[in-house]
Amino acid sequence: MSSLLIHNIGMLASPEGCEARRGADQGKIRLLENAWIYTEDGQIISYGTGNPPITFGEKLDAGGKLVTPGLVDAHTHLIFGGWRQNELAMKIRNVPYLEILAAGGGILSTVKATRAASEEALFRKASAALDEMMAFGTTTCEAKSGYGLNVDDELKQLRVIGKLNKEHPMNVVATFMGAHAVPPEYKENREGYLKLLCDELIPTVASKKLAKFCDVFCETGVFTAEESRRILEAGKEAGLLPKIHADEIDPIGGSVLAGELGAVSAEHLIVCTDEGIQSMAQGGTIACLLPATSFYLNSTYAPARRMIEAGVPVAMASDFNPGSCPCLNLQLVMNLGCLKYRMTPEEVLTAVTLNAAAAIGMENRVGSIDRVKQADFVIWNAPDLNYLCYRLGSNLVDCVIKKGVAQTRFSMSR
Amino acid sequence: MSSLLIHNIGMLASPEGCEARRGADQGKIRLLENAWIYTEDGQIISYGTGNPPITFGEKLDAGGKLVTPGLVDAHTHLIFGGWRQNELAMKIRNVPYLEILAAGGGILSTVKATRAASEEALFRKASAALDEMMAFGTTTCEAKSGYGLNVDDELKQLRVIGKLNKEHPMNVVATFMGAHAVPPEYKENREGYLKLLCDELIPTVASKKLAKFCDVFCETGVFTAEESRRILEAGKEAGLLPKIHADEIDPIGGSVLAGELGAVSAEHLIVCTDEGIQSMAQGGTIACLLPATSFYLNSTYAPARRMIEAGVPVAMASDFNPGSCPCLNLQLVMNLGCLKYRMTPEEVLTAVTLNAAAAIGMENRVGSIDRVKQADFVIWNAPDLNYLCYRLGSNLVDCVIKKGVAQTRFSMSR
Repeated sequence: MSSLLIHNIGMLASPEGCEARRGADQGKIRLLENAWIYTEDGQIISYGTGNPPITFGEKLDAGGKLVTPGLVDAHTHLIFGGWRQNELAMKIRNVPYLEILAAGGGILSTVKATRAASEEALFRKASAALDEMMAFGTTTCEAKSGYGLNVDDELKQLRVIGKLNKEHPMNVVATFMGAHAVPPEYKENREGYLKLLCDELIPTVASKKLAKFCDVFCETGVFTAEESRRILEAGKEAGLLPKIHADEIDPIGGSVLAGELGAVSAEHLIVCTDEGIQSMAQGGTIACLLPATSFYLNSTYAPARRMIEAGVPVAMASDFNPGSCPCLNLQLVMNLGCLKYRMTPEEVLTAVTLNAAAAIGMENRVGSIDRVKQADFVIWNAPDLNYLCYRLGSNLVDCVIKKGVAQTRFSMSR
Repeated sequence: MSSLLIHNIGMLASPEGCEARRGADQGKIRLLENAWIYTEDGQIISYGTGNPPITFGEKLDAGGKLVTPGLVDAHTHLIFGGWRQNELAMKIRNVPYLEILAAGGGILSTVKATRAASEEALFRKASAALDEMMAFGTTTCEAKSGYGLNVDDELKQLRVIGKLNKEHPMNVVATFMGAHAVPPEYKENREGYLKLLCDELIPTVASKKLAKFCDVFCETGVFTAEESRRILEAGKEAGLLPKIHADEIDPIGGSVLAGELGAVSAEHLIVCTDEGIQSMAQGGTIACLLPATSFYLNSTYAPARRMIEAGVPVAMASDFNPGSCPCLNLQLVMNLGCLKYRMTPEEVLTAVTLNAAAAIGMENRVGSIDRVKQADFVIWNAPDLNYLCYRLGSNLVDCVIKKGVAQTRFSMSR
């Protein structure tokens, strides 16, 4: 048995329990001063304040600093070939996305690069990104396929995710997102691609247990609400839980559908309607908001406060991807939650821990400092939660503890 | 003699020369592929492409990466006691700044903490911030006084800046900013504080050579344009070059005054008028823009493109301070320059190197990769300049070279 006692915690801050927190409860978190946490074999055994009753085993002095659960990034497009820095100049000149697409850029250039990349190359690249995510405080994340858009390359992406989950310290949860775009070879045969998704890819992914979730990009010019319903229902039938990219640019019914289908989460929701919010509240869908994408695209910000007020649990994630959000830093996402969504630091912490865990079906294992959960923590160079949300642009991680093991400092820069 | 050859530079990117670049020239930079730089005793001796003609001395392999001049942060309030994280919750609730002030917060709480701090404590705190700035790529910065607001504590701040410049690898240029606010003890005696500034503090600071610049906060409720003129003219007379915080909230004449006085730089300029831009263009004033502050305060962004089009050289800086911008990361400022000002990566690089150097009178020594300038560089984990500006939230620094010496990796997190 290996044990670890983290002591001299100046402030322990964590949401409580094994369920997404909604409404006023999203901002109610456990705050303990002068605290300790005791873990065995990677699990939280006990915690408390004052002098810890444990005298044996390994000890880690938190130096009077803030300790939170490890952060959970519930939405990433982690597995991709290439980068798209050359589109920056076009964006600066306000070139419309459709024109960038026509010039060979946009998502299809990433599809091309991802198809061309070997499984090993994709693994190495994503593994380096996970190192960096962990260095910024993330200990669990989700990763989507969706740059393969054919049988071989979608399965390739999902195998890379599975291998990362096994070989990297990070917990990585897989989402199948063949419905990220219609690939060029099906441009004139939309129905053919829908059949490939529903009749071949989804059953294969499910039977090979390569993913837990099925996601679809419900948006003007991508998949309609009806097509999204068809794909997500095929997923449900095969045992893949539904997620949906909804209301990012146009509110074409994605958030309403999310609630109707009982989707675990709906993503983006920048232009979410009140009808959509009501539907999500009734369906128990978590709003997974991606403020760094709003920032990067100069779009507006999702109505987070309205969602909280309507009783929809709000999670936040990075949306890390090579096009609309080349950012994997959840600390910046937390800043944006405060500054742009006007969420309180307590609501923000819940959004990137317990509610994010719930958005990827991990709320029983991670996302809070509770007995029997995984011993995933961050010690922050911060005296309190306000400071963590207030400082901007610095990496405030002092130490990441994953499954009860203090991680060596990762290279910050690769 | 110590020498350093940096070779295998994938792309060398630098503005050219010893003068601020304006108009279309701001975006014209030197781009060399497969390049090298040779330095002796901390100075640039030569650079070129292909095989370097130097075979002796120390060598540093840039690994085919991007190399730029070390970044220059031309506007910081580096020296302060305390932090102000507890104002975050008030900001989120949209509490007006005047109400925060009335509750004992705002700038006056920093004045209180700075007055209470020892010179040694201020030095240690600022030195740690300089470590972090350098870890993000900054090799030269400016630092202002302005949280003392009395003779003893303004001089204390300036002595700390002088000591940092001597003892830290960073070049630190001092600006006297006693005119940052009217201190509480002069609330009913404004004229008394103006006299203290003009008749006592400015002459003392100048005669002790504690600062190069004199700055004033020209803003509604702080100092009027006429008061600002009086203070800056007193500074000029004593040998302190004028800078001015202008048009941040209200355009009360600060930018017009900047041009009239031939101020070296005008800061913020969020609501700058065309008249102000014309005046700055005629007066040779550099616009020192602070986009992270706009971001943090949810205000609009300065009209950078209009300034460039009008022939005003644009610099960008962090504005690092504990209230309106607790951010010292110039990489984030570069992102904001592209995303929010719609400046090109080339214009952005000039803004944080040569034009920033010119904004603090250092354009002959730093800010570009030119012969005889200081050997200050950053090797980036980036293949090209577009990538550096495109990635968000990661620290892309691979290695910082200061005065010809590769710096050990600084702690990222303190």
